[in-house]
Amino acid sequence: MQVSRRVDRHDLRDLTIAIRFEGEYDESYSAGDNSAVLPTDTMKNTVYALAARQCVEDPEEFGLRLSRHFLDRNPRLRRVRVDLRAHPWVRIPIGDREHGQAFVRHGPEARTARVMCNRRRVRMGAGVRNLLILKSSHSAFAGYLRDEYTTLPETHDRLLATTLTAAWMYGENDLDFHITWRAVRRTLLEAFAEHDSRSVQHTLYAMGQAVLDAVSAVDAIRLVMPNKHHLPVDLTPFGLENRNEIFVPTEEPHGLIEATLVR
Amino acid sequence: MQVSRRVDRHDLRDLTIAIRFEGEYDESYSAGDNSAVLPTDTMKNTVYALAARQCVEDPEEFGLRLSRHFLDRNPRLRRVRVDLRAHPWVRIPIGDREHGQAFVRHGPEARTARVMCNRRRVRMGAGVRNLLILKSSHSAFAGYLRDEYTTLPETHDRLLATTLTAAWMYGENDLDFHITWRAVRRTLLEAFAEHDSRSVQHTLYAMGQAVLDAVSAVDAIRLVMPNKHHLPVDLTPFGLENRNEIFVPTEEPHGLIEATLVR
Amino acid sequence: MQVSRRVDRHDLRDLTIAIRFEGEYDESYSAGDNSAVLPTDTMKNTVYALAARQCVEDPEEFGLRLSRHFLDRNPRLRRVRVDLRAHPWVRIPIGDREHGQAFVRHGPEARTARVMCNRRRVRMGAGVRNLLILKSSHSAFAGYLRDEYTTLPETHDRLLATTLTAAWMYGENDLDFHITWRAVRRTLLEAFAEHDSRSVQHTLYAMGQAVLDAVSAVDAIRLVMPNKHHLPVDLTPFGLENRNEIFVPTEEPHGLIEATLVR
Amino acid sequence: MQVSRRVDRHDLRDLTIAIRFEGEYDESYSAGDNSAVLPTDTMKNTVYALAARQCVEDPEEFGLRLSRHFLDRNPRLRRVRVDLRAHPWVRIPIGDREHGQAFVRHGPEARTARVMCNRRRVRMGAGVRNLLILKSSHSAFAGYLRDEYTTLPETHDRLLATTLTAAWMYGENDLDFHITWRAVRRTLLEAFAEHDSRSVQHTLYAMGQAVLDAVSAVDAIRLVMPNKHHLPVDLTPFGLENRNEIFVPTEEPHGLIEATLVR
Repeated sequence: MQVSRRVDRHDLRDLTIAIRFEGEYDESYSAGDNSAVLPTDTMKNTVYALAARQCVEDPEEFGLRLSRHFLDRNPRLRRVRVDLRAHPWVRIPIGDREHGQAFVRHGPEARTARVMCNRRRVRMGAGVRNLLILKSSHSAFAGYLRDEYTTLPETHDRLLATTLTAAWMYGENDLDFHITWRAVRRTLLEAFAEHDSRSVQHTLYAMGQAVLDAVSAVDAIRLVMPNKHHLPVDLTPFGLENRNEIFVPTEEPHGLIEATLVR
Repeated sequence: MQVSRRVDRHDLRDLTIAIRFEGEYDESYSAGDNSAVLPTDTMKNTVYALAARQCVEDPEEFGLRLSRHFLDRNPRLRRVRVDLRAHPWVRIPIGDREHGQAFVRHGPEARTARVMCNRRRVRMGAGVRNLLILKSSHSAFAGYLRDEYTTLPETHDRLLATTLTAAWMYGENDLDFHITWRAVRRTLLEAFAEHDSRSVQHTLYAMGQAVLDAVSAVDAIRLVMPNKHHLPVDLTPFGLENRNEIFVPTEEPHGLIEATLVR
Repeated sequence: MQVSRRVDRHDLRDLTIAIRFEGEYDESYSAGDNSAVLPTDTMKNTVYALAARQCVEDPEEFGLRLSRHFLDRNPRLRRVRVDLRAHPWVRIPIGDREHGQAFVRHGPEARTARVMCNRRRVRMGAGVRNLLILKSSHSAFAGYLRDEYTTLPETHDRLLATTLTAAWMYGENDLDFHITWRAVRRTLLEAFAEHDSRSVQHTLYAMGQAVLDAVSAVDAIRLVMPNKHHLPVDLTPFGLENRNEIFVPTEEPHGLIEATLVR
Repeated sequence: MQVSRRVDRHDLRDLTIAIRFEGEYDESYSAGDNSAVLPTDTMKNTVYALAARQCVEDPEEFGLRLSRHFLDRNPRLRRVRVDLRAHPWVRIPIGDREHGQAFVRHGPEARTARVMCNRRRVRMGAGVRNLLILKSSHSAFAGYLRDEYTTLPETHDRLLATTLTAAWMYGENDLDFHITWRAVRRTLLEAFAEHDSRSVQHTLYAMGQAVLDAVSAVDAIRLVMPNKHHLPVDLTPFGLENRNEIFVPTEEPHGLIEATLVR
């Protein structure tokens, strides 16, 4: 957690960071030779120190700084991957202004970033996690394969809900990462909202396609969409009709739809 | 989950409900006599059916409907308590308008309501859960008791963060529950933001007092505030100074401060 | 985590401890006067130091030592409660012996202990948490109240499963706590296994009664038994009969049965 | 959950199953054409029906039955992967015998199995998840790379604890899966217990190597070992010495060591 203090207006950077090393470390495994091993504890200290040296702006940029630091100091390191999760906080409103130093956590959602470097190439990307979305119209599921174990009724008007995880990689790195992230997120949400869905797959693809169409910097996007089923409750035993209004959300069993779209 | 469909504009009510019966049920325990036992499954059906009969507006009102239904039908029931948790969804924005039928989950936060009835009296209340709040100034902790096991340094400028659970009871039930809930929540947030804190206890009390002062309908309020410690990282081994900017959030061990303020 | 090292045979004490103070602390809340407040951090240090001074044996005994320490040093403290959770580890077997210094965690289950002291009286107790138990016979649920919202079929042969939490208080404190705990746990399991159950309530009561009958040191016992429903799967659409063999466990909605039996 | 009822002695099979399809399903994504899509709901029904038709023995065998069923019926399916997690239950002891129809859940640990099939080849494997293990001797971490951000002291006697996930694939499929699984699990535990560890990597490798040495059916094994740090508590402020006895377990930040050993 980094607090930048500009007089009365503070800014928070609340990041969870995972650093992954791959390289010529066989001896540490097979012979217990630690001489090339950078301890987890040192990685942790490095994160704090680099943040203290220069304030973290976009998570992508900080991931890149970390990656370069580690590649520079660790000759056995072939590939480093830094995954960052930024937890959003918004200012507490006081009347019609915002408090400068008091915050409320916003959403289960996190903004993610990824930096993958080897000694020749840097790949950067971003994403969202835990973005719960639901549409209550324009969602069908019909015309699917039937066999002797089919009991699911076809539906032309169901609830479609998911906890979206999306991760995309950029084809270029000279970007305003914050603006680009907002553009992708907005495109994902709008495509989800406006799609005439025939299945989770269908909507997932439409969302990925919309991102590739709208944001030229994105090279590839992976979407993971668990189907958070909302089953209509059978009210007929009570002499009532369920006019598609009362649902019970279920956790298990559930479908999980994944795909990667590459430009 | 209830979806109210008014032409193109749908509304969601996403509630988790717990119903608690207390009464003359000794025989069911001691003799296995189920003749007065209303099964959980029937309670669940009742929730669905009552929601279907009449659209749920405020959770408080629905809790009251449920409570009355159960008291009317179950002569052995002495006391019923209904706890409701409403999970907030907001509309997905499309350009400068809101989509009528697509939603995104808002916050880890939930709005809660409680209805406690016996055959003579109804008590209603509300609350918030999982409201993560943090202030980065005007928070001290000093002047505390010291003994041979004290190592904590005094601080006059620390991060104060908590996951607020608050639950309040009303002295009257003829309220606009939604407006009142918003007033209490706003008062809690403002009091937290503006308090010159000497401890979590001190701020907790100020928040509770502010609610009793601002919202006359509230009779009593309980606040639970785990101290989500953010420890300043020692950067001196790296030749750096931590100007109160870099913190590591820790989960355990942590303090947990609780109190109930009664008017 | 305490490791006692007796030559080649180590012992682990893996405890999670919660300490609760109640007393004359109004000023700390209302006026921010911390002069009587013992910081959480000092409580934590005290736990470590007292464990280091004298090896922890039974959690009950350590809870008592902590309670007395805090009452002795804190004149404003009226009541202290110490809750301890012991996480079980067993030794890794090597051939037909046990390794002295290598362990595997045993069970989701924890052994709990509670010490409640004021300046005149000590009350001690123990318990189990997260003890998942299931019986596949001698469990019925029938003869319950029926109304227009009843759809549950009566059953004379269902799965009964729960995640047991039990907490009991002793009427005397001069006990071998380990042996007594084992006796209560065994009694709970045997009563659950052998009961001819007409409902969760019925079995809960039988379990509590069995403990009061078998272990004279127990004064009162509280049992909490969520009904972890295992619903029989309808196989008739596939031309198959479910001879009470295939079940789907569900999490929500579920019943939660609680009671306290006092001698 | 399957209950096999042999007179007075029941057996439980408590499995969580994940089925993954890969194949020629592009049209379902890009055009919303569901005609080749087997719904999740049908997969779920298939699991129940196949279990009902023939009692589940080893999870590996059931995974294979499921895989073949799906490949036979779904011409567009190129690859199917079935992952199974078996949750262990043991019988409740009654005096010196075991109850035939009452069970207690054993351990956070699960036994896993994996079946991967395409139209030409079947690959089968198994594993463990959530196996918490700890050694209190013969664990060092020293001689590692040092830089300006190193603060970790070298240690020649630390606690080594992890939540082991291991997954191995077999080179042959005509095995007694239960006996082989037990042999691998025992080998992992013994290697962990007896290793003279210089690092988590070093012990991970020794464990994997021991499996490849001891169980010829295993072709490759992947181990994932988060370093569940137990930090020695500094007792010097209290005039006490920590003779490597008192530790505080921490969750974050932590190291995560992974490797795959291939024969």
